[in-house]
Amino acid sequence: MKEIKRIGVFTSGGDSPGMNAAIRAVVRSALYYDLEVVGITRGYEGMINGEFERMNRKSVANIIQRGGTILKTARSKAFMTPEGRAIAYHQLREAKIDGLIAIGGDGTFTGAKVFAEEFDFPILGLPGTIDNDLYGTDFTIGYDTSINTVVGAIDKIRDTAESHDRLFIVEVMGRDCGLIALRSGIGVGAESIFLPETKTDLNALMHRLEIGRKDKSSKILIVAEGEGDSGGAFEIADKIKLKFPQLDTKVSVLGHIQRGGSPTCMDRVLASRLGVAAVESLMEGRRNEMVGLIHGKVAFTSFDQAIKHHAEINKDLLKIVDILSL
Amino acid sequence: MKEIKRIGVFTSGGDSPGMNAAIRAVVRSALYYDLEVVGITRGYEGMINGEFERMNRKSVANIIQRGGTILKTARSKAFMTPEGRAIAYHQLREAKIDGLIAIGGDGTFTGAKVFAEEFDFPILGLPGTIDNDLYGTDFTIGYDTSINTVVGAIDKIRDTAESHDRLFIVEVMGRDCGLIALRSGIGVGAESIFLPETKTDLNALMHRLEIGRKDKSSKILIVAEGEGDSGGAFEIADKIKLKFPQLDTKVSVLGHIQRGGSPTCMDRVLASRLGVAAVESLMEGRRNEMVGLIHGKVAFTSFDQAIKHHAEINKDLLKIVDILSL
Amino acid sequence: MKEIKRIGVFTSGGDSPGMNAAIRAVVRSALYYDLEVVGITRGYEGMINGEFERMNRKSVANIIQRGGTILKTARSKAFMTPEGRAIAYHQLREAKIDGLIAIGGDGTFTGAKVFAEEFDFPILGLPGTIDNDLYGTDFTIGYDTSINTVVGAIDKIRDTAESHDRLFIVEVMGRDCGLIALRSGIGVGAESIFLPETKTDLNALMHRLEIGRKDKSSKILIVAEGEGDSGGAFEIADKIKLKFPQLDTKVSVLGHIQRGGSPTCMDRVLASRLGVAAVESLMEGRRNEMVGLIHGKVAFTSFDQAIKHHAEINKDLLKIVDILSL
Amino acid sequence: MKEIKRIGVFTSGGDSPGMNAAIRAVVRSALYYDLEVVGITRGYEGMINGEFERMNRKSVANIIQRGGTILKTARSKAFMTPEGRAIAYHQLREAKIDGLIAIGGDGTFTGAKVFAEEFDFPILGLPGTIDNDLYGTDFTIGYDTSINTVVGAIDKIRDTAESHDRLFIVEVMGRDCGLIALRSGIGVGAESIFLPETKTDLNALMHRLEIGRKDKSSKILIVAEGEGDSGGAFEIADKIKLKFPQLDTKVSVLGHIQRGGSPTCMDRVLASRLGVAAVESLMEGRRNEMVGLIHGKVAFTSFDQAIKHHAEINKDLLKIVDILSL
Repeated sequence: MKEIKRIGVFTSGGDSPGMNAAIRAVVRSALYYDLEVVGITRGYEGMINGEFERMNRKSVANIIQRGGTILKTARSKAFMTPEGRAIAYHQLREAKIDGLIAIGGDGTFTGAKVFAEEFDFPILGLPGTIDNDLYGTDFTIGYDTSINTVVGAIDKIRDTAESHDRLFIVEVMGRDCGLIALRSGIGVGAESIFLPETKTDLNALMHRLEIGRKDKSSKILIVAEGEGDSGGAFEIADKIKLKFPQLDTKVSVLGHIQRGGSPTCMDRVLASRLGVAAVESLMEGRRNEMVGLIHGKVAFTSFDQAIKHHAEINKDLLKIVDILSL
Repeated sequence: MKEIKRIGVFTSGGDSPGMNAAIRAVVRSALYYDLEVVGITRGYEGMINGEFERMNRKSVANIIQRGGTILKTARSKAFMTPEGRAIAYHQLREAKIDGLIAIGGDGTFTGAKVFAEEFDFPILGLPGTIDNDLYGTDFTIGYDTSINTVVGAIDKIRDTAESHDRLFIVEVMGRDCGLIALRSGIGVGAESIFLPETKTDLNALMHRLEIGRKDKSSKILIVAEGEGDSGGAFEIADKIKLKFPQLDTKVSVLGHIQRGGSPTCMDRVLASRLGVAAVESLMEGRRNEMVGLIHGKVAFTSFDQAIKHHAEINKDLLKIVDILSL
Repeated sequence: MKEIKRIGVFTSGGDSPGMNAAIRAVVRSALYYDLEVVGITRGYEGMINGEFERMNRKSVANIIQRGGTILKTARSKAFMTPEGRAIAYHQLREAKIDGLIAIGGDGTFTGAKVFAEEFDFPILGLPGTIDNDLYGTDFTIGYDTSINTVVGAIDKIRDTAESHDRLFIVEVMGRDCGLIALRSGIGVGAESIFLPETKTDLNALMHRLEIGRKDKSSKILIVAEGEGDSGGAFEIADKIKLKFPQLDTKVSVLGHIQRGGSPTCMDRVLASRLGVAAVESLMEGRRNEMVGLIHGKVAFTSFDQAIKHHAEINKDLLKIVDILSL
Repeated sequence: MKEIKRIGVFTSGGDSPGMNAAIRAVVRSALYYDLEVVGITRGYEGMINGEFERMNRKSVANIIQRGGTILKTARSKAFMTPEGRAIAYHQLREAKIDGLIAIGGDGTFTGAKVFAEEFDFPILGLPGTIDNDLYGTDFTIGYDTSINTVVGAIDKIRDTAESHDRLFIVEVMGRDCGLIALRSGIGVGAESIFLPETKTDLNALMHRLEIGRKDKSSKILIVAEGEGDSGGAFEIADKIKLKFPQLDTKVSVLGHIQRGGSPTCMDRVLASRLGVAAVESLMEGRRNEMVGLIHGKVAFTSFDQAIKHHAEINKDLLKIVDILSL
């Protein structure tokens, strides 16, 4: 196995808070182990275009606390074609990069897997996505920050809900995965939570509102954007308004604020640990795997597995919603 | 003039951060001056229903930092009718309330003015609204908190915008008044700001994007919800996408988070000052006026004037947007 | 075994963010399972004084987001005596309380253990302390909030440190346990971290400062308050000033802000899960144990063990500090 | 009068949040008016050392939201000597800088005044300090952020104070000026506020604690660091403990967190307005003045006046503390 001397690091897919902390950890630990590091801008697109820059310890100074990614991110159609990947490979060879660390989610790892197999190129991945939808890590980098942003936003909405005795339906991110909805829903004391992974029972909700509505001054329902059965937050609102016209029902779509912001301590520590582990593992010869944290310990999952399987919804947590929204 | 012995305090219209600080100031200063205080729940609606409660200093302990209003707020159709107001008057007489302090905005003061004239009832108003759209005060209670919430949210959005080289169109509150948009737009370094008070010049915007778009990594446009010419944030987005398909253009509607949250120091101090001033002025015989702060000094404006006129858009601030978004 | 019909809940020791979320979870889940719940004010002291109040679902409405504890907390000398505990027992019997859920730390569980044994009284404990120093749970309720407060405060301090090219020595809480220092230190990218659990090597620090000090604009050292070898933050500062008089060295003691504030989502979810689990387990007959979360699953540890053992410092994390502060 | 073609901008003295927004405004508006701009690093020290860098619009992109100052700041002993100033003048001439904008406080303007007179050099100043202690502006850049940081910190401390029925004495910044203490004290509902500008009446405080102490669960006293009569926060604490040993009395010194952090919207807008005004005024021939905002309008005050006079303590605000802490 060829020794790795110069690694490239990039972020890809949707940005998530903590990506900068991960980049910093990769760069610093690579330098610590006397490797050279190249930052690749704009993910696979930048790889194809040869947007490379040597990084030193100053390149990543004072970024651990910043949201977004200094390496920028993009989606690349060209990288989905064999021709695009061939150019990318050529660019990496030209730049004498002999190992890659990819920070991103599902799509990023799908690309990495194909590329790694086609060119037998050493790649490791770090789970950087707010959705927490990757198999092989307890938490993804960005998830903790995102649920805290959601909780902070809904704490504000509740002030208004309480003042007006309102019912608020809040749509949070999560196209295929309800984990943001689930945990933030418990965090705000939601009345009910609707997820892509569970069957939405609007009748049960209507019954709840029927029997509970007299002595409760405000109610928050959380709907993940990918929740499919009921047609989403606005549809649910319409149905509630029809059945309970006396309820003051409003919808709020939190939107893009959920992706940004200074990362929480947990996300910074997670990103730091995984970044160091990725560099050490790449040096030790690991390839084509995502580096995650399971039960507090660094763990490796093949890209294949990480993509195919999904983090599961903890049924206990769903039950807790029912109990506590009494 | 009859001496005032027992005052009622209530919040009405949309809630705003700092209303609780205002309630606290009214209650504490009333007690300080040996008046009795009654909290009226749910604004004019609660007045009609006789939802009254005696308040002491403990009633308002530990609320200065809380968003929303512990007295709740509502809109009352009944109070718009002479019959409704007659009942309200009767309720106040029954409860021996001989003066009122109303915390709210335009609508609240319109009701207060009519009621005060019909029944010769002493009322003073405090400007509690996030919109800053009242004449007779430099700032309304809640405005400062709201623009900070907007700025905090857009700071997060910018992380994503920067990472993806995106253009974000952010809709902020302000149905008739662009002051939230204006000041928060300057605060986030917006590219352009669209207000209800100014003619929207989309051609100028398109020109700006044309000449400026190469070396700027992210752009934020702010649109007040009441901006009329262009059809709002989504319409503007469509037109930009049509003309600049290569731009990654997104819309974010901030929504109800702008009303809630713990008030800023400025809002707490403003609410505290105005609350004390309202009680003192009511005792001294002032009536039918809004108590505001102009140039750092307590100032009084008749309800009539406060409603009729509007805070004006400072043209200098608009020019600053142009200069700084260079 | 006697069936439990009425439980008491209390908080004791230092307050921690999330205690209110835990109280809410205990009350709501008790009601869900048709138990009666009594809130005991001021911990063991209130138990002796019979400060009991029946709680319903409204008692805990709108508190999940609040720091501190609505049941208040205190340290009780009387409860350390057999006489005091006998009175407490008598009070509980009088109030027909037949089970207890204690939220607190080391000291709380020591008292609970003795009391449970003396009177064969069913008690379960929830780990509520910012220090994360309890054996039997991955995290204590309040720890996550606390480290985020520390990280937020140091992010502010770094602004000043960067602007002045300063070295800041920041003292954080942790009398016997360096876990706040460790994780927040990684989170802020600290130069070095000094803990009670490790030998402080000031020579190594001086060497680091010697070789590294030219091209780094700011440096943050974290010192846990219980760090003993070096005499604490001010002593370390004095030594650095002596050796590096050209360095602009400052000390900041974060103090009590680390205990308060609205709990993070993680702390709210943790408190909610443990609160429900405690009620369910008490009903099922578990006694004299702390209910924690290990590897994402509810786990039970005898009070004995929870007190005797301590959460250990993860050596990997210490190494990461060295690598990343390059 | 010579036309100005190239200006220098620098920050000096203690850093304050919003300095970056001011730098951005100076740079962008200079470019808007076709001036060249040079950033001078580390204040007067950098001026002497010739630490100059040309700035373009990218130099100040994405900094409006950041605390601290990208131009760094320092105190310069050399600039206090005629020789030092002569070198500085020479450096400016060499770099063809023909006008200066200085962002800082008292000390900064003292230096600017001397320098401007000695070399007939055009300088304008922007009030950048958290203390709000400059005459000639309603608010200084950084003050609003600082009082919000203080209020946020004390909100957290109050959680603990409430939970333990404690009295907290909190020391805030303000060596010669009590304006941070005053406004933040009102913002947190302080029991009493001790300022450098007023005589501290500990007897009155003791009387207040005597008569008030039974039914109030927590108490916050604010002490400005420059308060002189009583010996500061720890001395006051000792006296209270002596007289009221049953009170659980604690001291917290907030320290350097008060200088940093992302600026509030008000500080960003203030900095933006003043930055633009400074450039425009320098072009129009104004010299040796501080540019401030009085009653919402740009206003000019000679350095002489700005330094000599001080912002006054508003007696009405002090009275409000007494009334509201009832």
